[in-house]
Amino acid sequence: MARRPKAVELPPLGRLDRSAGNLVRQLSVLLREAVQRGDLKAGELLPSSRLLAQALQLSRGTVTEAFSQLIAEGVLDTQPGGGTYIARTLPAPPPRARQKPSRTTAAPPAMTARAARFADIARSMHPLPHVPFAVSVPVGLAAPDDVWRRLGNKVRARGPGAPASYSDPQGAPELREAIADYVRRARSVHCTAAQVIVTSGTQQGLFLACQVLLDSGDAAWIEEPGYRGLTAILENIDALGEIAQVPVDDEGLDVSAGIRAARHARVAFVTPSHQYPLGMPLSMARRNALLAWAQQQAWIVEDDYDSELRYAGHPFPALQGMAPERVIYLGTFSKILFPSLRLGYAIVPPGLEQAFVGARILMDRHPPTADQHVLAAFMQEGHLDRHIRRLRNLYAERREQITGLLQRHIRPHLAWLQPSDQGAHVVLLLAEGIDDGEVVRMALARGVSVRPLSTMYAAGQARAGLVLGLADFPYAQLEEAVKVLARVIRQCAQTSRPTPA
Amino acid sequence: MARRPKAVELPPLGRLDRSAGNLVRQLSVLLREAVQRGDLKAGELLPSSRLLAQALQLSRGTVTEAFSQLIAEGVLDTQPGGGTYIARTLPAPPPRARQKPSRTTAAPPAMTARAARFADIARSMHPLPHVPFAVSVPVGLAAPDDVWRRLGNKVRARGPGAPASYSDPQGAPELREAIADYVRRARSVHCTAAQVIVTSGTQQGLFLACQVLLDSGDAAWIEEPGYRGLTAILENIDALGEIAQVPVDDEGLDVSAGIRAARHARVAFVTPSHQYPLGMPLSMARRNALLAWAQQQAWIVEDDYDSELRYAGHPFPALQGMAPERVIYLGTFSKILFPSLRLGYAIVPPGLEQAFVGARILMDRHPPTADQHVLAAFMQEGHLDRHIRRLRNLYAERREQITGLLQRHIRPHLAWLQPSDQGAHVVLLLAEGIDDGEVVRMALARGVSVRPLSTMYAAGQARAGLVLGLADFPYAQLEEAVKVLARVIRQCAQTSRPTPA
Repeated sequence: MARRPKAVELPPLGRLDRSAGNLVRQLSVLLREAVQRGDLKAGELLPSSRLLAQALQLSRGTVTEAFSQLIAEGVLDTQPGGGTYIARTLPAPPPRARQKPSRTTAAPPAMTARAARFADIARSMHPLPHVPFAVSVPVGLAAPDDVWRRLGNKVRARGPGAPASYSDPQGAPELREAIADYVRRARSVHCTAAQVIVTSGTQQGLFLACQVLLDSGDAAWIEEPGYRGLTAILENIDALGEIAQVPVDDEGLDVSAGIRAARHARVAFVTPSHQYPLGMPLSMARRNALLAWAQQQAWIVEDDYDSELRYAGHPFPALQGMAPERVIYLGTFSKILFPSLRLGYAIVPPGLEQAFVGARILMDRHPPTADQHVLAAFMQEGHLDRHIRRLRNLYAERREQITGLLQRHIRPHLAWLQPSDQGAHVVLLLAEGIDDGEVVRMALARGVSVRPLSTMYAAGQARAGLVLGLADFPYAQLEEAVKVLARVIRQCAQTSRPTPA
Repeated sequence: MARRPKAVELPPLGRLDRSAGNLVRQLSVLLREAVQRGDLKAGELLPSSRLLAQALQLSRGTVTEAFSQLIAEGVLDTQPGGGTYIARTLPAPPPRARQKPSRTTAAPPAMTARAARFADIARSMHPLPHVPFAVSVPVGLAAPDDVWRRLGNKVRARGPGAPASYSDPQGAPELREAIADYVRRARSVHCTAAQVIVTSGTQQGLFLACQVLLDSGDAAWIEEPGYRGLTAILENIDALGEIAQVPVDDEGLDVSAGIRAARHARVAFVTPSHQYPLGMPLSMARRNALLAWAQQQAWIVEDDYDSELRYAGHPFPALQGMAPERVIYLGTFSKILFPSLRLGYAIVPPGLEQAFVGARILMDRHPPTADQHVLAAFMQEGHLDRHIRRLRNLYAERREQITGLLQRHIRPHLAWLQPSDQGAHVVLLLAEGIDDGEVVRMALARGVSVRPLSTMYAAGQARAGLVLGLADFPYAQLEEAVKVLARVIRQCAQTSRPTPA
């Protein structure tokens, strides 16, 4: 490769903005862009730093510093005996680099099939606006009181709640102890802190369970209707053998139907305390049948997302207590504290802890540390128990108000309540022929947030209905929202000519 | 099924603890356990609530309330005309339910192959103790100053930083704006806030990229040596076609070798600013070659984990700026603020935003809200820029101290520094024959944290070395740690009879 004896005439480099400061960087950018555009070519000798400094009215130091930077980057090179030239190892720039980057016409790589599914999920699972009947909106007395904030300020000031390095991927030991105490006491869960994995909420618990418990070709049971956030995970595990959608009836999951559909499934995902979304508990007979089936070869994932919120009797004991070596128990603080905290937990059978921890390390390494310590202190000092008692009374009252309003304002042949005495939501079933998706869209346009029931079924067998969350909105606002909903349902019914069930 | 005309004699139920309160729950538990043990059988009639209350010295209300609870659970049932019996639909309890749950002898389902790999990851990727030379330990001046804490207290008190419901899965808009401003200014990244996905750090960014960009049968390039947290994700995507380990040399990733190994790969994962772990930047020639290759069909994931920490010249501009429509850019606040915050970002080409958001919803719904607002305020008020400047000076000094100590205390034929002028870590290469895993274990036992280089290679081609993180430990502590390391290396060398390179 021949060396050019004379330095090139510099092409126009573009403007230096002397008022913006950092002329070294500005000059580096201009030179680099000239190379990328192809205005300066591999092997071309640059003018000396002295000449260039003169031409651009810069200090010589500025030019030599920019040269050093570009030499370090491999854009420029020096030759023995002096002289700085455009690096010879530069290949011709790719066609698009000759244009402004954003104007390239090369088509991007095709979207993967998975990417397209994820984009659908983003559309269907976006959070609802914080108005009735979004679920778990910490407004009014449903928000944790000032103790939460003051305790947080204290815990973050020093000690393990202060800024720290990478921490325990299983979760802060103090919080795991507090959670183990809580679930043993409140939910009859059998466990030690060593079995507790702190998660970012139930969603991460489900994701981890899918990753750890399922291998290529394995089948899984899920409830139908069921939680879309679970179905969507399973649909994206390429190698999954089969998803068996198992129907629920008045006693919860129909275990016999599950066995008929996929006897050899490796995992059953259930919501035994309060079926999501319909609300019935799994009966004792079904619990026994499920455990008897699982004894053969299967794990059970118990999603216990809102059992604390029971308004008659005390909460059902967890299924986990009947078979701690078979059940992965998932809990969350989203419903009993607030969702934006993003903390929950998985309680896993002995022997599975490290597998869950490893899977979690690959997802996000560990949960943020500070709030874990705030929550541990909040629990240890008894504030969580008090908050749950308050929430239970509050939601019982709001629930009564909302169901009363629905019964008063919505005609009983168009919509009726699904019975349930637990949880942070109620389900309003719609008469046949009413499109719940249309109701949801129209209600949202009028400032009312509800979720459609039909999307929680596999295609083709769906019941229409609405999922309404409880939160401490003022009565007048709830009444207004129910009236809006009543109008929307009436309108949709007129379009569709519903058949009463 | 015949009805029994007389109520059964109650079997011993176990003790009620009158001082512990909540007798309703205690009685429910005792009755339920008697059914699970098989001491009370399906169809058996219970004594009346009046008689049972007498026998147990309880109020009748307590007994009827416990009955109601168990009826709701499906354990008990009532018959027309009165009388409460053990539900007839109860199947015989499964064998194990006759024993105490924790004593079951039924073998658990076999661990999946994936679970075993995850357990390995948990062992190899555990966080290091917070002593020299763990990476990114926010001690001394490396910790954010009191502004961070005071701003946090203020931001959490009210507004969007206060407890909230489910929030934007893409990240708080204020933080996305602040990040877009920052990367445009500091890293020459071309983007708007709409392209920013707030993540829980680089690890989640890599996980999301793998999920979104790879379909069944697709190949991916990764650097060798490279970041184990990436390799491990790819090894757990069942349907992945191929992982091409592409060697790095003094100019970074060897693009020609990548093309020879897997021309049609869908994604290349690179660390262009500061190769992880070896530290060289990707030369301009290689950048151009990589982009030219990617124009055909591939995405590039640019992991820019510590480019802010450059000690000579200014940071290299991001590769993303040369091809914003091809590059997924990943950044993190772990190195420039602190790891326990768990916040980072992905900047994705237009058109991929919703796919990333959907994948993130399935993993953990959204990042915790409060700290996002604290960080946004911290950036908007200019504190982050000041903190980075401080950190850069501090780490430059610590780096000089550490490399000086290493050169003074460790014999040059046993270990030498890999050249680099950037980042939050340095690499000490070890003479052939020294087992870096052994050095790491022995050093850890003596209170010194280092990572082994050899595990960052594919099996069989590894170089031995140590990765040492920078942090603001006092000089005396650093010196002590280097002396420990020197002794350990000497001992390991005597065992192995190293050959100098």
